[in-house]
Amino acid sequence: MNVILLTEEDFIAVDKVWLQDRRSLHIQTVLAAEPGRCLKVGLLGGDLGQAIIVRMEPHGVELEVRFDTAPPPPVDISLLLALPRPKALRRILQSVTALGVKQIILINSYRVEKSYWQSPLLQPEALMEQLQLGLEQAGDTRLPEVLLRPRFKPFVEDELSTLAAQANCLLAHPYATEPCPANATTPTWIAIGPEGGFIPYETEQLVLAGFRKIQLGSRILRVETAVSALLGRLLPT
Amino acid sequence: MNVILLTEEDFIAVDKVWLQDRRSLHIQTVLAAEPGRCLKVGLLGGDLGQAIIVRMEPHGVELEVRFDTAPPPPVDISLLLALPRPKALRRILQSVTALGVKQIILINSYRVEKSYWQSPLLQPEALMEQLQLGLEQAGDTRLPEVLLRPRFKPFVEDELSTLAAQANCLLAHPYATEPCPANATTPTWIAIGPEGGFIPYETEQLVLAGFRKIQLGSRILRVETAVSALLGRLLPT
Repeated sequence: MNVILLTEEDFIAVDKVWLQDRRSLHIQTVLAAEPGRCLKVGLLGGDLGQAIIVRMEPHGVELEVRFDTAPPPPVDISLLLALPRPKALRRILQSVTALGVKQIILINSYRVEKSYWQSPLLQPEALMEQLQLGLEQAGDTRLPEVLLRPRFKPFVEDELSTLAAQANCLLAHPYATEPCPANATTPTWIAIGPEGGFIPYETEQLVLAGFRKIQLGSRILRVETAVSALLGRLLPT
Repeated sequence: MNVILLTEEDFIAVDKVWLQDRRSLHIQTVLAAEPGRCLKVGLLGGDLGQAIIVRMEPHGVELEVRFDTAPPPPVDISLLLALPRPKALRRILQSVTALGVKQIILINSYRVEKSYWQSPLLQPEALMEQLQLGLEQAGDTRLPEVLLRPRFKPFVEDELSTLAAQANCLLAHPYATEPCPANATTPTWIAIGPEGGFIPYETEQLVLAGFRKIQLGSRILRVETAVSALLGRLLPT
């Protein structure tokens, strides 16, 4: 937790918050902080700043807060990802958020197990928790938007071309000839398939909508590795 | 498992292997393969090729094998990594191997918990298992070399400058001004600290030895994300 994220509900005065949940626990046990100590905080959706611990009780911590710094600029790379198995999804959501991505669409694919769509991790509160963990890691405050599209065909027919018209669209494909570009300076979508890859029909639909096949060497990567490696490459610096 | 890795001990004739371990299980249960089916194989340290299943028994599988293709070219990016906690190390070793890295040095740092060096995962057989999983994922045959350096100072004094003299040396550092370059076309070492980062003394020693501080944006990444993101960026394509 490199920043303690605060929401409007935490405020008990214009510049004071009272925390009782895992954030209070983190301050008391992991940081072993004492009153008077300065901590890095961020207002969810707002600015970063500092907090001073003004009161500690067994069941909570009171902070005096001041916000004065904009969060890191959002990254204009968006992720179109075949829904991974829940255990990997948890880590992927955290790392994608930490990398600064602000739009994630989880789509279906022939090789996505149907049961994955029933995962409790896809409930709004559970998704939110992973995204917040990513922001807390990164020192960021702005949540990504996560959309779920459990049917491939309607998504392609109704949404894909609009989305693709507004950005440079790339499709990770181990047998593509074009290497993945580095330093994306224009809005970019990167599509990454499931373990085993998109099936030819799906690849074809993405290409028809304007996605260009790119590769990152001939080695086959696990989805989790591919996501971080491709985003790390595309990040503008 | 995108390639079934074979070793000299598997051979029962010049072009035949007999497998009884998790590879046999994978062929019989995950692939649900039948005699006659063609599989992708690789000789550990050698070429890739095809195998035909010639015999299946409850306790093993016999393959007729032929090797005809060189494995993907090794990547000349090496990793100097502060030893991560064992659970993360397992995944990191697999993904780094899958990305094609052939040299990994795990070093100590002030912020590495001492207990991590006692992990059974650092035993040669356990390390080998993770590396093989990475090769099987990638479709590669050439193992990386993994060196353990549980004492920072002797490593710096005895080995670091020799290593640094032969390569472009980069040190991931969230507050560096130089962005991480993309497409490393010369031999490169990338040094990545523990969660919480290298302490100033360690950073200083690495810089003295010739490492240049680079960043990948101002967000703080978990080690696992940073490793894949930086390697994905550095990969020559």
